[in-house]
Amino acid sequence: PNDTIEYENYFSRTLLDRRSDKRTDSKWLNTKQNHPATIYILFSNLNPLVTLGGGEDGSQQPEVRLCRLCHKDVKEYMSQTEKVTVIFLGVELQLATLNGGILKEDEEDGLVAWFALSIDATFAEQFKQKHEDCYFLHPPMPALLQLPEKEAGVVAQARSVLAWHNRYQFCPTCGSATKIKEGGYKTTCLKEDCPSLQGVHNTSYPRVDPVVIMQVLHPDGNQCLLGRQKRFPPGMFTCLAGFVEPGETIEDAVRREVEEESGVKIGHVQYVSCQPWPMPSSLMIGCLAVAVSTEIRVDKNEIEDARWFTREQVVDVLIKGNQRSFFVPPSRAIAHQLIKHWIGMNANL
Amino acid sequence: PNDTIEYENYFSRTLLDRRSDKRTDSKWLNTKQNHPATIYILFSNLNPLVTLGGGEDGSQQPEVRLCRLCHKDVKEYMSQTEKVTVIFLGVELQLATLNGGILKEDEEDGLVAWFALSIDATFAEQFKQKHEDCYFLHPPMPALLQLPEKEAGVVAQARSVLAWHNRYQFCPTCGSATKIKEGGYKTTCLKEDCPSLQGVHNTSYPRVDPVVIMQVLHPDGNQCLLGRQKRFPPGMFTCLAGFVEPGETIEDAVRREVEEESGVKIGHVQYVSCQPWPMPSSLMIGCLAVAVSTEIRVDKNEIEDARWFTREQVVDVLIKGNQRSFFVPPSRAIAHQLIKHWIGMNANL
Ligand SMILES: Nc1ncnc2c1ncn2[C@@H]1O[C@H](COP(=O)(O)O)[C@@H](O)[C@H]1O
Ligand SMILES: Nc1ncnc2c1ncn2[C@@H]1O[C@H](COP(=O)(O)O)[C@@H](O)[C@H]1O
Repeated sequence: PNDTIEYENYFSRTLLDRRSDKRTDSKWLNTKQNHPATIYILFSNLNPLVTLGGGEDGSQQPEVRLCRLCHKDVKEYMSQTEKVTVIFLGVELQLATLNGGILKEDEEDGLVAWFALSIDATFAEQFKQKHEDCYFLHPPMPALLQLPEKEAGVVAQARSVLAWHNRYQFCPTCGSATKIKEGGYKTTCLKEDCPSLQGVHNTSYPRVDPVVIMQVLHPDGNQCLLGRQKRFPPGMFTCLAGFVEPGETIEDAVRREVEEESGVKIGHVQYVSCQPWPMPSSLMIGCLAVAVSTEIRVDKNEIEDARWFTREQVVDVLIKGNQRSFFVPPSRAIAHQLIKHWIGMNANL
Repeated sequence: PNDTIEYENYFSRTLLDRRSDKRTDSKWLNTKQNHPATIYILFSNLNPLVTLGGGEDGSQQPEVRLCRLCHKDVKEYMSQTEKVTVIFLGVELQLATLNGGILKEDEEDGLVAWFALSIDATFAEQFKQKHEDCYFLHPPMPALLQLPEKEAGVVAQARSVLAWHNRYQFCPTCGSATKIKEGGYKTTCLKEDCPSLQGVHNTSYPRVDPVVIMQVLHPDGNQCLLGRQKRFPPGMFTCLAGFVEPGETIEDAVRREVEEESGVKIGHVQYVSCQPWPMPSSLMIGCLAVAVSTEIRVDKNEIEDARWFTREQVVDVLIKGNQRSFFVPPSRAIAHQLIKHWIGMNANL
């Protein structure tokens, strides 16, 4: 049945096994950082360094790809710990599987480790002058959507963790400076008697902000509710969405957001699939939501417009590519997949 | 079919409509704060003030309930803004529905507003001396699980937001002091040129930490994997769980956590239901996960033990109440509901 299909959204696939057990193994991390097989990806201002290469399928169409650097390319920056941030991303999946997960303790465990390295603007300028075929991809949206699927997952992980360090450099409990630990996945306060050092607190760990995004179905099953914000390009409509609040379920967040933004009341809610969205660190939780009322009252503070679209209208845009009346986000956005999922569903829910 | 049932877990139901549109209406908030019909619930050190009352069903069994205070009970604390925190929780749901959502602009809109008020230890001591029938419920776990269902949702909301203010009093971007705004749902940095004041940043908004918790099924469909941590009471086993990481899907977080903790590999993952868990502000995302390997290798850093339990063993404990061999968390924990959901499922997945 439909409900057992697992959708793979963009930013979901990755090349890496995170190997979180290695984050506390500073000897291993140190060995890998200096190992010639290790891969570094570079970031400046949260933008990844990329280059143009041939398409994955061997075609000649140029494709944006991550620049995979090695230790000798970056070692001059590595010692400047105030100006760079290093994150351990994991080890290459294929090799981890080849080894059957059993690893030798010496540097020749055969695992290819990946690190993200964030450098400041001056270093970025220097680097670009030496490597003319590379550039920092920006603005991130929609540019990040051009990456190959599996590199996108790596970038999602790296960008989210780097964005956290970028914004959370001071201890929110006492305001003191902090120190990065555990391969980049933890910060600890440097003030000796800070209460954040007693017990386990989320102040030490990266944020992940859950967001609900929902395909709202008309009670008749043959129309869906799409909306647009003022800042969208003209003609674009998409699924409603909003942040999950403290003390709220996914299902209630869907009901609250739809009612707040459009006035439409929701009954049943069903989870479909999710998507990490590294802007800076959201988890988009995609749902189907069945409306139990139809009158639209748009909250102009939140959105500009919301309308019911018929199945035919959506098929026209999504399948037949007729985008005269309106259009939806690209296929790499979960909104697109949710809308498509509905199109593919039996008309009588 | 099974997948359209929506489970309602403890901490999910509430008495209130959050009315987030009112958070920026300081005139309305002010009027309501001083209104005699308004309800205040009190917290000290994140513990809610409760009292013992008759059972909801009219039986004589005493039941823990929130103390519903009014403005005159708390007004002496309200002015001491350094020692108290006020959060707008919402308006009573029944009345909001009676009014059909259309509200008059004056103070007599008929809506009963609820606020949470957190007071410091000295005030808490004073308050208890005047109100001998009330006490602050603690330690929170398992004490919070005694509240009536709908009050639990209100406490989950209030406790999560208060815990955030408790731990996030300083701007993580620059270390300066912050100011609470929008009924308690936003903080802004007081340093004029702080980068957190340009654009929208999650540093201003409460944290919600997504956690995956999963009922892992043996490939034969007739056994499930339960584990225990050292700090658990002897004999207790429960579902494996862990925090979702940046750039990770729910499904991959399930796979990573199960493999990390138990060595068992997971194939298909299916969302079941979720539960807000205000310790301090988690969103427990409950899933079914089908194992594709069976050998258990416990990571002793994370858990103490993990074992396959047969359907009969679990039925014995959960339905027949025979807890000699092991036991699971109480029915108000989502782990219990996930295990029960599996028991109720067709044996051949
Ligand atoms: N947001 C978070 N809050 C608390 N602990 C976290 C968080 N994210 C990851 N962790 C990790 O999870 C462990 C605590 O898990 P638990 O035993 O479930 O309380 C900590 O020791 C951290 O390593
Ligand atoms: N964690 C969060 N990060 C950013 N915005 C948030 C968050 N939680 C709630 N919000 C609200 O969501 C609005 C931004 O939503 P958006 O238009 O999706 O970027 C902000 O103006 C806030 O009111």
